Amino acid sequence: MKLTRREFNRLLALGAGAHFIPNLHAQTEPRKTGYCIVGLGRISMQHFMPAIKNSAKARVTALVSGHRDKAERMATEYRVPTSSIYSYDNYDAIAANPNIDAVYVALPNSMHAEYSIRAAKAGKHVLCEKPMSTTVADARAMIAACQHAQKKLMIGYRCHLEPVNLRAVQLIRDGKLGKVQAIESTFGFNIGPNEWRTNRKLAGGGPLMDVGIYSLNACRYLTGEEPVEIDAHSSVIDHDGRFTEVEENISWTMTFPSGVVASCNSTYGATMPGFYRVHGSRGMLNLDNAFIYEGLVLRADIDGAEPIVMRSPSPDPAHFAAEAEHFADCIQQNQQNKAPGEEGLRDMELMMRIYDSCKRPAA
Amino acid sequence: MKLTRREFNRLLALGAGAHFIPNLHAQTEPRKTGYCIVGLGRISMQHFMPAIKNSAKARVTALVSGHRDKAERMATEYRVPTSSIYSYDNYDAIAANPNIDAVYVALPNSMHAEYSIRAAKAGKHVLCEKPMSTTVADARAMIAACQHAQKKLMIGYRCHLEPVNLRAVQLIRDGKLGKVQAIESTFGFNIGPNEWRTNRKLAGGGPLMDVGIYSLNACRYLTGEEPVEIDAHSSVIDHDGRFTEVEENISWTMTFPSGVVASCNSTYGATMPGFYRVHGSRGMLNLDNAFIYEGLVLRADIDGAEPIVMRSPSPDPAHFAAEAEHFADCIQQNQQNKAPGEEGLRDMELMMRIYDSCKRPAA
Repeated sequence: MKLTRREFNRLLALGAGAHFIPNLHAQTEPRKTGYCIVGLGRISMQHFMPAIKNSAKARVTALVSGHRDKAERMATEYRVPTSSIYSYDNYDAIAANPNIDAVYVALPNSMHAEYSIRAAKAGKHVLCEKPMSTTVADARAMIAACQHAQKKLMIGYRCHLEPVNLRAVQLIRDGKLGKVQAIESTFGFNIGPNEWRTNRKLAGGGPLMDVGIYSLNACRYLTGEEPVEIDAHSSVIDHDGRFTEVEENISWTMTFPSGVVASCNSTYGATMPGFYRVHGSRGMLNLDNAFIYEGLVLRADIDGAEPIVMRSPSPDPAHFAAEAEHFADCIQQNQQNKAPGEEGLRDMELMMRIYDSCKRPAA
Repeated sequence: MKLTRREFNRLLALGAGAHFIPNLHAQTEPRKTGYCIVGLGRISMQHFMPAIKNSAKARVTALVSGHRDKAERMATEYRVPTSSIYSYDNYDAIAANPNIDAVYVALPNSMHAEYSIRAAKAGKHVLCEKPMSTTVADARAMIAACQHAQKKLMIGYRCHLEPVNLRAVQLIRDGKLGKVQAIESTFGFNIGPNEWRTNRKLAGGGPLMDVGIYSLNACRYLTGEEPVEIDAHSSVIDHDGRFTEVEENISWTMTFPSGVVASCNSTYGATMPGFYRVHGSRGMLNLDNAFIYEGLVLRADIDGAEPIVMRSPSPDPAHFAAEAEHFADCIQQNQQNKAPGEEGLRDMELMMRIYDSCKRPAA
């Protein structure tokens, strides 16, 4: 697109010029992708925002929160003008803010769809935390809204960009383990009382939706296959008020077309670090702390070879920075991202099958 | 029982006197329990027999083998008179050998029932390797035969006597992990070609019967419960001739009355060390090398406490010695052993349910 100087000045006056500046200056200093943070909670304030504080590609340019005082503190810290602080009431006004390229949706699960769709309608790209929604229908609606608005949609699957997980995938793809036969994966924790995560309306489900999704997704990227059969069990052991609406424990088995069987466990009632172990005909691969933000430890014991060990640093702000910068790159270069809405939709469909299986009678 | 000198001398002349000697000398030096080793293979020659070589309670007093030369070499090493070497043809003659108190049945699985039952009929106690049989009917017949002969029957569940496993059980029973919510367990290996273990007639099944049984049994002793629901999947990935009769991979989930879910995997196609991990509301317990003969490593991470670590030595002949000596004690003191036939029968019934579940369609 070529603009005359007059057209460019007019666009600038309309506040839309910022959209073109990165292209004009592409050869010299690319404009940082501006993120509007939707929801000021643990993941945004303790992880996402600090991770991009010094990023060359991404920056925080706006905030959405129901707590004005908290938003103002964050605005000061991240040099966000107070005019770029929004509430959930005036959220749609982000449309008029040229410094917002994308939103980062870090709200309770049931709010993901609405705030992603409204962002797309406001002309913003969407980076949405996992699980992308609480229903398959919502996930489809999010994809449709972003397609319709010609905006990009990425789901916050950090592990798709995380070097230790990627190394694990590469070892498997390179055949280092021989033929993969079985996988175990777990992720869970002992949840406190009165968390939104145990409220079905807000969370959509229990530990499966929140952390079990990591194991589910990992089994898919480790095998590169989609599960054929699913069997699942869920249970509540602690009748202490935490689990009146969602499962406490959930265990499921997935059979893949190659014959690989994956066994996964998740819980809100016990200590259960993120973990997977892949068993191949020529060796075994183990990843401890597989899904958290730091301290991942990969160990591959391959027949006749020295063990391969890889660790990620602690602390490690790179997890969220990688996500934010990858999406920024995709926006700037108009490319598909590595965890698009369709990836999130597949997990949503599978999680619903897992829940359905829990209801079926077993042997 | 009181014997006159004349009666005693007559019994001695009949070759039966040996039975009474231990009682006569009970206060001074107890007679070692004499084991007849049935089947000279890896487990008997490399593990069981060396383990009791210096035992104060047990000794090898007879051998049964189809290979006379091998039996004679072993007889020399263990000071077994050549008159106490039997073949499978004259096996029933063990009845007349007063130095045999018990048999140790270490044959391919499908032969366990026959040689255990014939031993009971010959008036000998039976220590039989796991799995106790290849069918539930055979397991019941073994129990009935031993009951009828008033002989003891123990199944070779070493872990019931193994200190690291027992420590794991104790930590759980003492509530150190809080409420147990989930368990994972695995055990498998990549099997070579032409092994009797992949012959259905000899083995009765695949990795489940051979090594998966350890995980199954462990979930039962860790929880102290019997599974209610079972879901299982099996697969063959390597179509290289090894798995024409038995499964290559098997994965199953067991739900226990308390709500605990256990996920287990076994394979003959991949590296899969014996392992279990128990997730409780207050901590997690991990046992590496859980089911082999040495190098077990227990680690319990309990909230707010220093990690508990316990290791077993390498090498560790105590595993099989503990088994042989416990059964010897039970024989000498006429007590129930810790892994009686009924324990083996339960696993047989459960393994058949696991195989049945593999045949049912899933979601």
